[in-house]
Amino acid sequence: MIEPEFERLYEDMGRNHIQPLWRAESSVMPSEPAPKTIPWIWKWSQLSSLARRSGELVTLSRGGDRRALGLANPGLGGFPYATATLWAAVQWLNGGEVAPAHRHSAQAVRFMIDGEGAYSTVQGDKVYLERGDFAINPPWHWHDHGSEGDGPAIWMDGLDVPLNNYLDAVFFEQGTKDVQEVTRVVDGSVLKYGLGQLRPAWEAPCQEYSPLCTYKWTATEQALNNLAKVSASPFDDVAIEFTNPHTGRPVMNTMTAWVQMLRPGIHTKAHRQVNSAVYHVFEGRGATIIAGVRFDWEQGDIFVIPSWAYHEHVNASKSERAILFSIQDTPVLVALGKYREEALATNGGHQETKEVFDAERTLAHR
Amino acid sequence: MIEPEFERLYEDMGRNHIQPLWRAESSVMPSEPAPKTIPWIWKWSQLSSLARRSGELVTLSRGGDRRALGLANPGLGGFPYATATLWAAVQWLNGGEVAPAHRHSAQAVRFMIDGEGAYSTVQGDKVYLERGDFAINPPWHWHDHGSEGDGPAIWMDGLDVPLNNYLDAVFFEQGTKDVQEVTRVVDGSVLKYGLGQLRPAWEAPCQEYSPLCTYKWTATEQALNNLAKVSASPFDDVAIEFTNPHTGRPVMNTMTAWVQMLRPGIHTKAHRQVNSAVYHVFEGRGATIIAGVRFDWEQGDIFVIPSWAYHEHVNASKSERAILFSIQDTPVLVALGKYREEALATNGGHQETKEVFDAERTLAHR
Amino acid sequence: MIEPEFERLYEDMGRNHIQPLWRAESSVMPSEPAPKTIPWIWKWSQLSSLARRSGELVTLSRGGDRRALGLANPGLGGFPYATATLWAAVQWLNGGEVAPAHRHSAQAVRFMIDGEGAYSTVQGDKVYLERGDFAINPPWHWHDHGSEGDGPAIWMDGLDVPLNNYLDAVFFEQGTKDVQEVTRVVDGSVLKYGLGQLRPAWEAPCQEYSPLCTYKWTATEQALNNLAKVSASPFDDVAIEFTNPHTGRPVMNTMTAWVQMLRPGIHTKAHRQVNSAVYHVFEGRGATIIAGVRFDWEQGDIFVIPSWAYHEHVNASKSERAILFSIQDTPVLVALGKYREEALATNGGHQETKEVFDAERTLAHR
Amino acid sequence: MIEPEFERLYEDMGRNHIQPLWRAESSVMPSEPAPKTIPWIWKWSQLSSLARRSGELVTLSRGGDRRALGLANPGLGGFPYATATLWAAVQWLNGGEVAPAHRHSAQAVRFMIDGEGAYSTVQGDKVYLERGDFAINPPWHWHDHGSEGDGPAIWMDGLDVPLNNYLDAVFFEQGTKDVQEVTRVVDGSVLKYGLGQLRPAWEAPCQEYSPLCTYKWTATEQALNNLAKVSASPFDDVAIEFTNPHTGRPVMNTMTAWVQMLRPGIHTKAHRQVNSAVYHVFEGRGATIIAGVRFDWEQGDIFVIPSWAYHEHVNASKSERAILFSIQDTPVLVALGKYREEALATNGGHQETKEVFDAERTLAHR
Repeated sequence: MIEPEFERLYEDMGRNHIQPLWRAESSVMPSEPAPKTIPWIWKWSQLSSLARRSGELVTLSRGGDRRALGLANPGLGGFPYATATLWAAVQWLNGGEVAPAHRHSAQAVRFMIDGEGAYSTVQGDKVYLERGDFAINPPWHWHDHGSEGDGPAIWMDGLDVPLNNYLDAVFFEQGTKDVQEVTRVVDGSVLKYGLGQLRPAWEAPCQEYSPLCTYKWTATEQALNNLAKVSASPFDDVAIEFTNPHTGRPVMNTMTAWVQMLRPGIHTKAHRQVNSAVYHVFEGRGATIIAGVRFDWEQGDIFVIPSWAYHEHVNASKSERAILFSIQDTPVLVALGKYREEALATNGGHQETKEVFDAERTLAHR
Repeated sequence: MIEPEFERLYEDMGRNHIQPLWRAESSVMPSEPAPKTIPWIWKWSQLSSLARRSGELVTLSRGGDRRALGLANPGLGGFPYATATLWAAVQWLNGGEVAPAHRHSAQAVRFMIDGEGAYSTVQGDKVYLERGDFAINPPWHWHDHGSEGDGPAIWMDGLDVPLNNYLDAVFFEQGTKDVQEVTRVVDGSVLKYGLGQLRPAWEAPCQEYSPLCTYKWTATEQALNNLAKVSASPFDDVAIEFTNPHTGRPVMNTMTAWVQMLRPGIHTKAHRQVNSAVYHVFEGRGATIIAGVRFDWEQGDIFVIPSWAYHEHVNASKSERAILFSIQDTPVLVALGKYREEALATNGGHQETKEVFDAERTLAHR
Repeated sequence: MIEPEFERLYEDMGRNHIQPLWRAESSVMPSEPAPKTIPWIWKWSQLSSLARRSGELVTLSRGGDRRALGLANPGLGGFPYATATLWAAVQWLNGGEVAPAHRHSAQAVRFMIDGEGAYSTVQGDKVYLERGDFAINPPWHWHDHGSEGDGPAIWMDGLDVPLNNYLDAVFFEQGTKDVQEVTRVVDGSVLKYGLGQLRPAWEAPCQEYSPLCTYKWTATEQALNNLAKVSASPFDDVAIEFTNPHTGRPVMNTMTAWVQMLRPGIHTKAHRQVNSAVYHVFEGRGATIIAGVRFDWEQGDIFVIPSWAYHEHVNASKSERAILFSIQDTPVLVALGKYREEALATNGGHQETKEVFDAERTLAHR
Repeated sequence: MIEPEFERLYEDMGRNHIQPLWRAESSVMPSEPAPKTIPWIWKWSQLSSLARRSGELVTLSRGGDRRALGLANPGLGGFPYATATLWAAVQWLNGGEVAPAHRHSAQAVRFMIDGEGAYSTVQGDKVYLERGDFAINPPWHWHDHGSEGDGPAIWMDGLDVPLNNYLDAVFFEQGTKDVQEVTRVVDGSVLKYGLGQLRPAWEAPCQEYSPLCTYKWTATEQALNNLAKVSASPFDDVAIEFTNPHTGRPVMNTMTAWVQMLRPGIHTKAHRQVNSAVYHVFEGRGATIIAGVRFDWEQGDIFVIPSWAYHEHVNASKSERAILFSIQDTPVLVALGKYREEALATNGGHQETKEVFDAERTLAHR
């Protein structure tokens, strides 16, 4: 029981919008991260069906709209945020549609899941995108998208929307025209910068964002196959980070993107980092064990790894590769001096699997 | 009224933790920042009285405790955070007391309000602190504080606790001894680095944090007086930023600190930035107009300027200077490519004052 | 006639190793660069014949030797230096020979002119080299070369030997074994880093030197052809710089290397820079006009462009491309704050050709 | 005896300006630096007398002239260069004289030996200079000097003239007026930036050169005395480097400057670096042992330490401090990846003194 003079003191503090640290220290400064972001998975069967139904029902009208299905981590109180810092969505464009031009201070990347004739025009620079292509959208750059094919174009969006909002740094502007004028050679950046170590000699390096607007899947796949011949990470197997070849840094200030190839039968060791990640299964079947819970995945699924949670990956097939794409907020942590990582030291580097993820049950526990 | 097939679609989405962007775009991506952090002021009359009462009632026991009164911005839902990213507190140490050693991943600075014989030991480096001194506490550095005088030691703490928690990057550890061993010459960093442009020639520059543990008020005051003879900012008058002289960068990765001298009678012009700040009135009387609301202040008061709010400062005295200390999260915004600033273009650079701040009334409006 | 007291003063100065600036200012500080390095060309007919004869006569014995024919710019007083800062040589290795392991503080690059089965092992990292391949040799890295084929291996060496000597920074050490042990996968760096924008995700970036040991001709040629489709420099046509993809900087601190494709019929505009360059004609026939003198070139030739000399390139063929490889000391000038460049403003950007280079006559003029 | 076919080969090479590396390797790539710059000393008795006589005889006429006595290292073949990279001179200005405005690409610093009422105006920024003050002159900045006092103003000039010429990067321009218009507050940079860690908050950092035009002796002396209380180098005793507080880097790209206080009776340990230095004795009496030769010095003397020569300093007085100022080309070596240093491991870190320097005898040896 609290004594009367303490009670009066705390009441007076409360009235003055003051909170004593000594009554809150363990919650304000716990001994290690206790993220509200929880491990989670969205199944492609649901994602694709809901996206297709949206494509049938919801028209893309002028007004900055995107037919994007935002993934809302159940730990984040109803916000459409995949992790505390990362927005992830599945975007669906019907054949012939245009997602009109706008720009925003949020930093964005896209990874193509499907589609033929899809294009993205960023600040007058138009690129065609195919399955597996990775494209970037630097902040405050005008961009519009479209599908020139008959079928739908589908991709995963990754943005730093939650971080941008948290930092009260959000700006958004609608374009005056739906479709920007194309002012450069189509796909020109791939021709100009597609071999990152060979730079046009007369140009100053691009310091802020990668000069390469899209990283083609053919190059990514070749890099994965080449790398597999010489090296791999015990924690992530054959893993490649997309970088700005003019600086060696991640493609965005607030986000980086990886592609990982898990070779047949691979089961990686567990480690954890101070960062959060959203993974998309591009190819294959397997599982990721996150903080002791096994999340089984197959092509198209999207799942979340929160900060400081041990995780390890399994390719369930003995004969086929699995390919994972991911976005990660690591550059934020590194820039602010907050990054840490740690390998699991016990049990040969493997977690004990305490349960297999079951969405309903997991939520009930919370 | 929503049509049934839409209703079903949105229900199915909700069950799958998916939120359609087209129903949320204006809240997820508004056209400019709409901070939850609100302009606010805590009066020294209240702060000092509550701190004194805490000093009488609450003992500092072993357990990582600090007698710190956290300022809780009324816009932030009850969290003890001054802005979305910044923790600010008034800390009170009775004569002869020791705040025991601990360390944390949060980045911290302190600004001395009062006290004699106060000291801070950071990673074995002990400095004595007097009114006006500014001290830094890099992340994961052990630190304990104490007062060797008879009277209380009072200072303002500035930490990136809210940001650190938001990023799920919090680590905290209690020391095994209350008081660290002092392993360097007391006040040695002032002797060694106190003239920032003259570096010990045989040492590599300190890259991560300032090698100068404390910035003495005598030097700060001299710099303000010197600067006043040659230059001033139209928005901030005679303003100085504490920097790491080995890099020219702010003293912390996530926070910078300023001291401003408003000369007698000065009324600055309005501007706004994408950053948030917590101000402490070190000396003088005046007012700051924030987003059209006038906040009158006097010595000891602490007030908040949110992101993207126009603000201008007034020294109410025609004969005395006013001195403001502040912490600002600007380095975060700069590092992540999100900083913007803008001068008020209309009305000669001055806002129209729509009201004078009255805490009760302001809260009632919310 | 000099007055006696002046004469005595200058004599006394001379005896004390003092020189009055006022008698030397125009030579010590002329209004613009007056290089001792002169424009020059070495013909492949001579180079290849002398190299072949050396291959027949001179054996590679243990002792750090290389069968390298150093190009001695006639302006540099007999030193085997192509420019004041750059060493260039043609190196010849007979089939089956080994150039034994040594290391030096000089920074080196190589460009393959011919040969099959040639290899270079740098710090245990072995790469096979073919015509057009570019290889790097960071300072103080052990390196040995060999030819596993029957025919000779021929390449151009580029080193910063003159600069290294000028700065009194030379170190050299002979290996204890002729041939280093190969400690990594052969050609592994091409597999690992050969697509510069796709980095192994778990590795820290290589900051000092490019992680890519060799830049294969196939990639270089593809980059040239791609670039030609979108862009070109008015001064250098389709020009590519080899960079460290982990930093975007040149492959050496003191040297950069370019490959230029002059498209059929191209005649570039004239410009000049504060830097010196050594060019090798990899393919084609044409001319470079340097400070008003035309130097005609054909495959294999090597020529020099001194600092601050206007120069422009001509591809003499209307149907075939010409390919130039070059080394340049630009990174030195940039790092030290001394780089300048200037386009020729008159005559549509073209120099008046005052003469055609004739080695004998040019030397006679000097 | 050389065989005839070799003789013919080498003759043919010579005619074609080709030199075989295998006949020159030991001179082109010796195992360690063999500088032409030799250790040397110029005595103040001579320097001051010759400067005074020049002041009487030689008038400062319009034409870019400076009354500067260049120190010509006897090892450098008659060039007025103190080391291979550094120009050093004693400059003498009579009372009331003006050294007219010019600018050059060479980078310059000055250290005041004597004078009252001396000033330097650099790009419109005028500073008054007293004994011990250190001033900087960034490249291509207009500068004129003058003495407003009755007596002479004397200082030591340090420039990168030899390096600038070697790199063929020299540019020089005469002003149209002898005396520049003063466009800023006199001595303003000292007021604005004189406490390096306290930066005007609204200004972007000065990246290229120090914003501080002059480093006053009073601050330097205070820093030396402060530093002496906490730390010292075993090789250089109490040594301070002048830096740009906005970057932590040396004040010039090609040169740094130090002030060292040798405390009474100090005898430092020997080490050597890949760099060259020119020392001026500001106060005191002592000796420096360079590569085994003892150079005794007293106030005003100037001496040279070449690259890779072991050196150690002795303060001959048991009661008085000695103060040494120096310029060093270290930033060049660091920027180009060529810096090394090494402590003498034998004999307790002290060289054996093989001889005492005697100018006549030393020259006779060469």
